[in-house]
Amino acid sequence: MASDRESSEAPTAPRRRGRPAKAVSAADNTRETIVAAAAREFSRDGYDATSMRGIARSAGVDPALVRHYFTDKADLFAESIAAPMRPDQLVKRALAGPRDQIGVNLVRYMVETLDVPDTSERIVRMLHTALGQEFAAKMLRQFLIREVLKRIAKELGDDDAELRASFAATQVVGLVVARYGLKVEPLASASAAEVVSRVGPVVQWHLVGNPLP
Amino acid sequence: MASDRESSEAPTAPRRRGRPAKAVSAADNTRETIVAAAAREFSRDGYDATSMRGIARSAGVDPALVRHYFTDKADLFAESIAAPMRPDQLVKRALAGPRDQIGVNLVRYMVETLDVPDTSERIVRMLHTALGQEFAAKMLRQFLIREVLKRIAKELGDDDAELRASFAATQVVGLVVARYGLKVEPLASASAAEVVSRVGPVVQWHLVGNPLP
Repeated sequence: MASDRESSEAPTAPRRRGRPAKAVSAADNTRETIVAAAAREFSRDGYDATSMRGIARSAGVDPALVRHYFTDKADLFAESIAAPMRPDQLVKRALAGPRDQIGVNLVRYMVETLDVPDTSERIVRMLHTALGQEFAAKMLRQFLIREVLKRIAKELGDDDAELRASFAATQVVGLVVARYGLKVEPLASASAAEVVSRVGPVVQWHLVGNPLP
Repeated sequence: MASDRESSEAPTAPRRRGRPAKAVSAADNTRETIVAAAAREFSRDGYDATSMRGIARSAGVDPALVRHYFTDKADLFAESIAAPMRPDQLVKRALAGPRDQIGVNLVRYMVETLDVPDTSERIVRMLHTALGQEFAAKMLRQFLIREVLKRIAKELGDDDAELRASFAATQVVGLVVARYGLKVEPLASASAAEVVSRVGPVVQWHLVGNPLP
């Protein structure tokens, strides 16, 4: 999600074409226009009902241009809310590793990301918002179901995989809330390795039923 | 938190003695005065630094009178925040049962309590507040550590019991946030029995390391 925000040139709508002095920043401007349109569409319609195509229409650009800047809807959503981390990508990475290490790897990636205070503070703020506003809760819920739980379930394949993934989510969300939000001790001061060894096997068990150590 | 609200013969505050016309409501008034003082003290000093004695002083009543109405500080705290459930009492009940059923019983009691929408909405509101205000977070954290985690640790006895209890808390808190706050599916619609069978063994494992089924 590193972007080209340092550009100082204003948005270039089609009517501004033919002003070569600003050509260098046109790409940045287009990208920002798309992100602004995405923020509007997501916050009006929620995650599920918003499409890449609809965002392109709202931004007044070709859908191909949206796909040029953003690989998928999750990517654009994360950018539009300035997401401090990408659970969907952490899950993708964990699913790409050994099957019996998914839980441990996922928790390791999460803790590595969240042990950076700025990141965890922003995630906690998002959870705070989601617990206070039904619309924000719905958006986060839709994103988690669509981009995280369904991906895991598809990878695992069995019948109740989505249910199992949602139970794994309880353990992960609770880790975030208790360690980084409420800062319950001695959990909050426990080392990353300790957290991975105590929470990873639980996530694994929820997901695929590996016995705990 | 069942109390003696209906009793009209309970002790009255010293300064109110000898006002027979108000005798019927004096007990209620005293009780309310104590609760109001508790709310002031807790919100000024936090959970740990507030004492039954300090609340009595603030209410202008004898400490024995505070103990007449409230069994302990947890009781008074729960009353002062109009707590919709008592995690400390659910834990006490679970700890009183078979050692290898603590996790399952605790999750069962929690789900029975929280599957009542009014209760879960109030708990979610409290979590929302705690995630948004450091002071509220501190109060909840202190209450959980003092009245829940330390009790469990004392009962379990071993060296890292408090650490284990705090990891068990991640699973329980995450269940509350994901099922009742974010309402992630299919978790949110899963039966209580399903939740107990999938989360209970995890809490048990965190607490005492019983193998998962």
